[in-house]
Amino acid sequence: MKVSRRSHVPPFAVMEILAAANQRRAAGRDVLNLCAGEPSTGASDVVRARAIELLQDGDLGYTEALGVPALREAIAGHYRRWYDVDVDPARIAVTTGSSGGFVLAFLAAFDVGDRVALARPGYPAYKNILAALGCEVVELDCGPETRYQPTVSQLMEAYYGGGLDGVVVASPANPTGTMIAPAELEAAARWCSEHDVRLVSDEIYHGIAYGGDVHQATAAVYDDAVVVNSFSKYWAMTGWRLGWLVLPEELVAPVDALAGNVALSPPALSQHAGVAAFSDAGYAAAAANVERYAVSRAALLERAQELGWDPVAPADGAFYLYGNVAATGLDSRTYCARLLEEADVAITPGTDFDAVNGHAWVRLSFAASPQTVTRAAERIAAWQRAL
Amino acid sequence: MKVSRRSHVPPFAVMEILAAANQRRAAGRDVLNLCAGEPSTGASDVVRARAIELLQDGDLGYTEALGVPALREAIAGHYRRWYDVDVDPARIAVTTGSSGGFVLAFLAAFDVGDRVALARPGYPAYKNILAALGCEVVELDCGPETRYQPTVSQLMEAYYGGGLDGVVVASPANPTGTMIAPAELEAAARWCSEHDVRLVSDEIYHGIAYGGDVHQATAAVYDDAVVVNSFSKYWAMTGWRLGWLVLPEELVAPVDALAGNVALSPPALSQHAGVAAFSDAGYAAAAANVERYAVSRAALLERAQELGWDPVAPADGAFYLYGNVAATGLDSRTYCARLLEEADVAITPGTDFDAVNGHAWVRLSFAASPQTVTRAAERIAAWQRAL
Repeated sequence: MKVSRRSHVPPFAVMEILAAANQRRAAGRDVLNLCAGEPSTGASDVVRARAIELLQDGDLGYTEALGVPALREAIAGHYRRWYDVDVDPARIAVTTGSSGGFVLAFLAAFDVGDRVALARPGYPAYKNILAALGCEVVELDCGPETRYQPTVSQLMEAYYGGGLDGVVVASPANPTGTMIAPAELEAAARWCSEHDVRLVSDEIYHGIAYGGDVHQATAAVYDDAVVVNSFSKYWAMTGWRLGWLVLPEELVAPVDALAGNVALSPPALSQHAGVAAFSDAGYAAAAANVERYAVSRAALLERAQELGWDPVAPADGAFYLYGNVAATGLDSRTYCARLLEEADVAITPGTDFDAVNGHAWVRLSFAASPQTVTRAAERIAAWQRAL
Repeated sequence: MKVSRRSHVPPFAVMEILAAANQRRAAGRDVLNLCAGEPSTGASDVVRARAIELLQDGDLGYTEALGVPALREAIAGHYRRWYDVDVDPARIAVTTGSSGGFVLAFLAAFDVGDRVALARPGYPAYKNILAALGCEVVELDCGPETRYQPTVSQLMEAYYGGGLDGVVVASPANPTGTMIAPAELEAAARWCSEHDVRLVSDEIYHGIAYGGDVHQATAAVYDDAVVVNSFSKYWAMTGWRLGWLVLPEELVAPVDALAGNVALSPPALSQHAGVAAFSDAGYAAAAANVERYAVSRAALLERAQELGWDPVAPADGAFYLYGNVAATGLDSRTYCARLLEEADVAITPGTDFDAVNGHAWVRLSFAASPQTVTRAAERIAAWQRAL
């Protein structure tokens, strides 16, 4: 019987690497897995403790579609604490991870046939969700000259080319880790407002940055932009499936109505316990994780010469190193398959993030422990020398 | 700035009732709330205890997009236990509630512009999700003569009328509580297979039935059908956001790929702890809830004469009484608003389930405690007499 055309989503190449890595590990080999965009630590003790209390005597029924008021207030508090901006809690929608947030934001902002631009390389789910929802994706080819981030002139070209209804930006970005300068984001936001183009800003790696200025840039201050965020990265709560949106006024009621139908409510326990992530202990646990990533990142950059990936995207934030391995003469899928087979290190081929140029690139996630990351870098360097 | 056309989802009338009910309760009034389609008991002790263990030392990271193997195996075991059928765990996809299941099933089965039929009255989210995803909804007018369930001849009419790509059935159904006879479901499934029409069977109220035969009818035995189920109703785990699909072979890979993009994975803690729902203690707790609903239902049916709703849909299963209140001379929104204001009982106007005839109908949920339900029935009867 018929399968929908829109469900023909290209499978992620990393799934083969992961399956092979798991097989090798099951066979007793010491595999270092640097594929996953996932902190290895998990939720902080303060969040876990609160969840245990709630399991003993809490109401874990459906919540409001936009999330429990206490969590929406706590998120507003986070904007005051980090960004020194007042965000009305009424504009905050709690979502089932950033994934649930993207689905709701895209449904509320874009119709079937609408054209939405995004950077290539980029997180593949943006493109795949948009396509599943019937939108047309306009890929912007972003290279080292713009820190792999889209520019206003690219938006203008898309706009005057075939029309443009929206744009997704991410800073820090996956897979490159690069950030948009605040002035650039502001220029893009202003241009979008003036041209009735909806800006969707993925900020799930906010707080994980190594230059100190991530806290200054947020799209939440632009009236027309949709901000997407998550508890998965900074708060290391991946499996809790909790995220949020900051919405323009006119999208609040639509997202509320859509959420009541497509999701009912985000997970109740995650919401109630998630309030504790914004306690001092919650922030301290998250900050300690970022310090670990910084140690791993420094160890990688020290070995950058040895690795010889060129260019390497500047890892301003997040926990990824995205590098060009063309000099090895191997395309990235072969590179990753052989690296696993010959050195027991699993990383992700760039083809998952860039269908055009990804054959020359690989992504290494340094969210694992610094020791694991250091050992992996040494293995990669040694393996490459022997190629 | 532009809001999408597809986000213009009609708001649920019950939201106004709920807001007014909460206000009255906050003002100290003894409000009986029979709006929610939600068990009042919450998850069983065995599930909560397992969740607490996992919070102490479990890995709560992302899981496989289709769910953890242990839960998929446990669900397959459930099909053996209840239905005496073997379902390959590879065909089972764990989802973020049945809501997440519907989104994935509809995306995998239907393209933009596809026509999908469903019963009116019915659960409004089917229609609203389909419309948001760009599908065309074909409402089938279902009345007492077919237990408010669609018939093969209605499907044929739709098919030869404007074409038909899918049909959603629910048994027991919301809001009517009625069930499809196994022979009728089989006829519909066969007709659908022969005509390349995808059957989606919502079975989230399975196990909550009062005639004893709910365990015989399941669409999981039809190769082409998609079954949607949930932990929310029988296992009373609403806020845990956990459900599942049983998929035809050809939809497994598409749903896997879509899920990895639109959801990443269902909530990890819910999945790991959800395995315990299939323990003897888990089943026993759920069965005790169903006994409570049966007591409430009997108390309502005893007072049916006094209530004077006519007709009342036969509440074969689920925990709803759907009745026609036209004899009161009030349209259902006025009926519900006045019932709350004058007798402090909150129920749901039929307009949320049926845009054409719902003005004459109301839905009462008897998932609350038997005492609450009995008191509410007495209040409603007394209030109606005084009209």
